[in-house]
Amino acid sequence: MDLQALLDDLAMESAPCAAQGKVADYIPALAAVDPARFGLALATMDGQLVGSGDWRTPFSIQSVSKAFSLALVLARDGEALWRRVGREPSGNPFNSLVQLEYEKGIPRNPFINAGALVLIDRLLTLTGDSLGTLRDFLRAESGNPAVDVDPEVAASEASHGHRNAALAHFMASCGNLENPVDRVLDHYFRQCSLSMSCADLARAGLFLANHGLRADGSRLLSRSESKRINSIMLTCGTYDAAGDFAYRVGLPGKSGVGGGILAVLPERGVLCVWSPALDPHGNSIAGVEALDRFTTRTGWSVF
Amino acid sequence: MDLQALLDDLAMESAPCAAQGKVADYIPALAAVDPARFGLALATMDGQLVGSGDWRTPFSIQSVSKAFSLALVLARDGEALWRRVGREPSGNPFNSLVQLEYEKGIPRNPFINAGALVLIDRLLTLTGDSLGTLRDFLRAESGNPAVDVDPEVAASEASHGHRNAALAHFMASCGNLENPVDRVLDHYFRQCSLSMSCADLARAGLFLANHGLRADGSRLLSRSESKRINSIMLTCGTYDAAGDFAYRVGLPGKSGVGGGILAVLPERGVLCVWSPALDPHGNSIAGVEALDRFTTRTGWSVF
Amino acid sequence: MDLQALLDDLAMESAPCAAQGKVADYIPALAAVDPARFGLALATMDGQLVGSGDWRTPFSIQSVSKAFSLALVLARDGEALWRRVGREPSGNPFNSLVQLEYEKGIPRNPFINAGALVLIDRLLTLTGDSLGTLRDFLRAESGNPAVDVDPEVAASEASHGHRNAALAHFMASCGNLENPVDRVLDHYFRQCSLSMSCADLARAGLFLANHGLRADGSRLLSRSESKRINSIMLTCGTYDAAGDFAYRVGLPGKSGVGGGILAVLPERGVLCVWSPALDPHGNSIAGVEALDRFTTRTGWSVF
Amino acid sequence: MDLQALLDDLAMESAPCAAQGKVADYIPALAAVDPARFGLALATMDGQLVGSGDWRTPFSIQSVSKAFSLALVLARDGEALWRRVGREPSGNPFNSLVQLEYEKGIPRNPFINAGALVLIDRLLTLTGDSLGTLRDFLRAESGNPAVDVDPEVAASEASHGHRNAALAHFMASCGNLENPVDRVLDHYFRQCSLSMSCADLARAGLFLANHGLRADGSRLLSRSESKRINSIMLTCGTYDAAGDFAYRVGLPGKSGVGGGILAVLPERGVLCVWSPALDPHGNSIAGVEALDRFTTRTGWSVF
Repeated sequence: MDLQALLDDLAMESAPCAAQGKVADYIPALAAVDPARFGLALATMDGQLVGSGDWRTPFSIQSVSKAFSLALVLARDGEALWRRVGREPSGNPFNSLVQLEYEKGIPRNPFINAGALVLIDRLLTLTGDSLGTLRDFLRAESGNPAVDVDPEVAASEASHGHRNAALAHFMASCGNLENPVDRVLDHYFRQCSLSMSCADLARAGLFLANHGLRADGSRLLSRSESKRINSIMLTCGTYDAAGDFAYRVGLPGKSGVGGGILAVLPERGVLCVWSPALDPHGNSIAGVEALDRFTTRTGWSVF
Repeated sequence: MDLQALLDDLAMESAPCAAQGKVADYIPALAAVDPARFGLALATMDGQLVGSGDWRTPFSIQSVSKAFSLALVLARDGEALWRRVGREPSGNPFNSLVQLEYEKGIPRNPFINAGALVLIDRLLTLTGDSLGTLRDFLRAESGNPAVDVDPEVAASEASHGHRNAALAHFMASCGNLENPVDRVLDHYFRQCSLSMSCADLARAGLFLANHGLRADGSRLLSRSESKRINSIMLTCGTYDAAGDFAYRVGLPGKSGVGGGILAVLPERGVLCVWSPALDPHGNSIAGVEALDRFTTRTGWSVF
Repeated sequence: MDLQALLDDLAMESAPCAAQGKVADYIPALAAVDPARFGLALATMDGQLVGSGDWRTPFSIQSVSKAFSLALVLARDGEALWRRVGREPSGNPFNSLVQLEYEKGIPRNPFINAGALVLIDRLLTLTGDSLGTLRDFLRAESGNPAVDVDPEVAASEASHGHRNAALAHFMASCGNLENPVDRVLDHYFRQCSLSMSCADLARAGLFLANHGLRADGSRLLSRSESKRINSIMLTCGTYDAAGDFAYRVGLPGKSGVGGGILAVLPERGVLCVWSPALDPHGNSIAGVEALDRFTTRTGWSVF
Repeated sequence: MDLQALLDDLAMESAPCAAQGKVADYIPALAAVDPARFGLALATMDGQLVGSGDWRTPFSIQSVSKAFSLALVLARDGEALWRRVGREPSGNPFNSLVQLEYEKGIPRNPFINAGALVLIDRLLTLTGDSLGTLRDFLRAESGNPAVDVDPEVAASEASHGHRNAALAHFMASCGNLENPVDRVLDHYFRQCSLSMSCADLARAGLFLANHGLRADGSRLLSRSESKRINSIMLTCGTYDAAGDFAYRVGLPGKSGVGGGILAVLPERGVLCVWSPALDPHGNSIAGVEALDRFTTRTGWSVF
């Protein structure tokens, strides 16, 4: 299969869908991004890296970061993690307080905002520096030592963070935070503001396709843990549209409101797409389209 | 009617009910209160003040303060207030986030915690000092210049205030707070920690029985506004048990988790009862009993 | 006070508000009613009956009937009734399934549809004929032996009754119905289709102003039970707008989607207004306006 | 791989877990089943059929039937089906009315009870006989012409069906049923009461592993439709525990309260397990255990 030609085709066919979406506008730093940007990169298990469009341009990874947080905490805590966060789809918009109240401060899964706050809280306790631990990991796996927080985005997130503060205070009131609310929020806002390209992300995610082995051959996760992260990405990784994503794309994926989506092809590689215009669920509209076309063409869905 | 004998009877008959309740224990300062305390005071329109039991002992007025906040804001803002807070019963526990999210940050009524935060926020904007304005008012109406915040209770409230912080941040995220979250919370925690006796509260509330006229004869509220506060107390003043309170007692009332209840007898006077043990809804169990017996004996319910 | 002049004034001033409302259109029989009809009648404890506008024209009383069902069941069952239905405001639209599910088939109060179904179910068990018992009572109290079901409306209700069937089946699944679902629904649809004029309803409701004494002087309810029905009407009688109704009108009231509202003036009389155009909560828009003006003019609110 | 030895091992290791579960007891016919029964069968794409334990004993397939209904409707209606039912996980107990009300009568996915009622309603419209069409299909695919409804179970379901009647009436009130409520319910209760063995079900489901091709080689579903049913099974097939099932088992699966679970191994075969004792979510407790062990041993999860 000529992967380069395939990616070029997908880029050409999918990018125009962006016209039907809308760039995230809850913070000025994201609202300013050009909706016409489109990048697509594939990193394979055998070491290839192919891309098309703006695949080397850094963008705000936002919630895509949560897939990596989950891996880092699961690697350290194992199954004990599930006492503090569930692993069921939420069936509700991604920043909902309702379910959190109903379930007494235990977030439904690690990918809704409340769940991500718990991951960061835990990583803070375990390592003393959640953001630093994550950033070091992403630099190592992507091979790009320049991976870093975009300070403008981070400041913008912090100044629009009342809803996440509400979630964190609510969990604190239920006894489900170990660190001070302000500290957890600070690491959260900076984590969401990490800037990476499709190429960076595709390489950084390879351990999820490779049974938990890192780029240097060391083991981060057991074979079984690695599969389990993929299953959570499939059932919970794309906000309130995980069912639709599984139906159309059929791959474990994690999206972010910056327009990025990381999709895992077990035992094959990792695909990362970026297009800033979002559908009403908060997923990149051209990004989902490209992934849908990719699995239709290659047959490489997990089903 | 021999009011003194009546109050003594009610105290004797009702106080034992406290054994079926439980003192609020979410903060140590409240949990330490002796559940056997019981006070009952009646201030009448013609200037009498009668009491029984611990009617001159100060206690933490907690949410009883919200009736006074409402009066102070309504007096200044008039009907414009209702753009920021509703006046419908909540049908949900008093600190619920669910309804707040469903109604996009507009609290259902001024007496749930979220609504009280909006009142304080507004009074801060209007006067620059919400707590000070309220304290001055309570001192003037009760005739007791010693009315003040209990600093131990206030500190205790602040250190257990994550749930109220969650409410405030959530409303801020919806654009329904005008002042910084921390400032609003500080005034809220201190307001809840005001210490007053049954005698103080009964006198302070007389304007609600007297068509809005203050102790010095000046007008705080119009006749119509005064009635309207009474209607909100009747439909929303006793947490999730307002229907039951209206059914049993039949008077406008506002309760607090310190065990106080202020009840308005329109055109007659104000009755204040205090007994710290609460029923599962957060209302004083012996207090509701005493008010129930009072209206049964006197026939002075509004119905 | 010249009551006739007062009612004529109120009719003239309030009727035009109907233009801002909308006639109920969920069944053809109601949708066909002329929105310009307006009636207002006052029956006083001393035997006067005054009216204005279309006060002698029968209309579909719909949920106004629930106030009478409640009286008839409470008279027979007393406090035992409250094991099967609550008495708290619902805080939700009047036909909501959510709260019913959350509270395991116990309706929140007797005036939401689910609660009314429980009243009918109970009256069926107690008398063998719920509709017949109610109709006989209304004929006797109104002095109008022609009070009856409008068969066209009843047929229309039955053929559009899926939502009420859902409520009834759900309660049956929770064990909170004693009679077959179909039988309860049949009596419910016919009860809602009773046709009465403002004059009929004002007279029929006088026992609620008269401490439970019927037109013939016999006692239906104790003094205390009578007051308690008034308190439920005040807190729950006007769908999801009971707080607003209490605030504006300040009287116990029960409304129906036919455009009628019955309001109780304790120890004075009963006011009934009819105007078919409804506000978004399902209450007669000109009807609420007329009652608001009435209590403002007379000062006869309960507060 | 010695499949027979594997299945025998899994049966021996997993069957004891049943002691921690509880047989469904909402109808007498299910409550009477011996909790110690355990069967496991694997049908492979290359025509093998292996089993262990009670793998030839018929049991009540209950909701496992919904996977087949979905296939039969999708084969006829294609994507148009999704106008009447969603494909997102429910995040709520399987018979919840709340979400249905919130989403205006559109069930969240085809596997919650409301969604299954829509499938049956649609199959009734398309074929005139939903149950008959399904039964014929199951007989043909399983190769067992004796597959049929257990009339005792069907009668038991019908007499305990108030909750499903509530769902159906509610959807009818929203205009989301095409056939009379009673007719849809009758076919639903009989479909749930179909009796099949593990062997029958494993063979009958092979088209889902075989890209939509039936036992006779004819095409029921396109390759893509077949994958898409698998994705819905993975994200929604095991009630409120789909996330946990995906995490532990990593296969598309559909469970029933009779204790059966059908799991699809894409391009390999179909595994069916039966053990009547359920976990609190309604899934067979020993059944999930056996499937978890199966994928751990074989590595044949989709991730």
